[in-house]
Amino acid sequence: MSSCVFCAIVDGTAPSRIVYRDDAVIGFLDIRPVTRGHTLVVPRQHSSGLDDLEPHLGGRLFAAGQRLSAAMKSGELSADGVNLVVNDGRAAFQTVFHTHLHVVPRHNGDKLSFAKGLVVRRDPDPDTTAEMLRSALESDPR
Amino acid sequence: MSSCVFCAIVDGTAPSRIVYRDDAVIGFLDIRPVTRGHTLVVPRQHSSGLDDLEPHLGGRLFAAGQRLSAAMKSGELSADGVNLVVNDGRAAFQTVFHTHLHVVPRHNGDKLSFAKGLVVRRDPDPDTTAEMLRSALESDPR
Ligand SMILES: [Zn+2]
Ligand SMILES: [Zn+2]
Repeated sequence: MSSCVFCAIVDGTAPSRIVYRDDAVIGFLDIRPVTRGHTLVVPRQHSSGLDDLEPHLGGRLFAAGQRLSAAMKSGELSADGVNLVVNDGRAAFQTVFHTHLHVVPRHNGDKLSFAKGLVVRRDPDPDTTAEMLRSALESDPR
Repeated sequence: MSSCVFCAIVDGTAPSRIVYRDDAVIGFLDIRPVTRGHTLVVPRQHSSGLDDLEPHLGGRLFAAGQRLSAAMKSGELSADGVNLVVNDGRAAFQTVFHTHLHVVPRHNGDKLSFAKGLVVRRDPDPDTTAEMLRSALESDPR
């Protein structure tokens, strides 16, 4: 079993709510979401951060983030905007050292609940949230 | 002249401190930096956000962000970490509607100056900062 929790999620040896997968990356719900639907995209191949991430995998990470953004807007989450964020290094608030892209759905006027989410980070019904995202991705023509 | 300020920077009809260029994207200093060296990477081809950004250009955006991150760490800015951020949509704090990736150098223990930077957003010597980044990129073997 891997000592890296995201490698374990990729391997299927740790539980997660996977919403997206392709041959290079997977996307799963952050267990401490800042907003509902907050998803992490990680390369299947381990790297600790931008320094050792293969550049073509960075492109795949971004492409998946773009697809997830579209699904967050078009689907039931009906996001009005999205933040894509890589925190690279402890100085930049990285806490899990397997490269990951945060995809955070946003809504008009959500500044206060967003700020609250930074503190509370809890989704009362993550299974439904995961379903909403999966079905939005399935309906996405791309 | 373009009505989009980032298209004008790409065209060279608006002033900027360009630190990076390739055939798909350019990188220039944010005039309101959150930290010293805060750079924006934009595709040369206009798109307003993730919805109309060509996916291959997203990959190029990320690749340039990764190169800039390496230069921010290896060069005189000696960053300990980096935040890569796309704010997509007004709800997500996007203010200029030409797709852009923020590349924000971070230092260990800079939380307070980072928070201050979010408010103040000023570099007293941006020309020197731009030179530091350009020469770090030139020394970067990639
Ligand atoms: Zn890992
Ligand atoms: Zn433009």
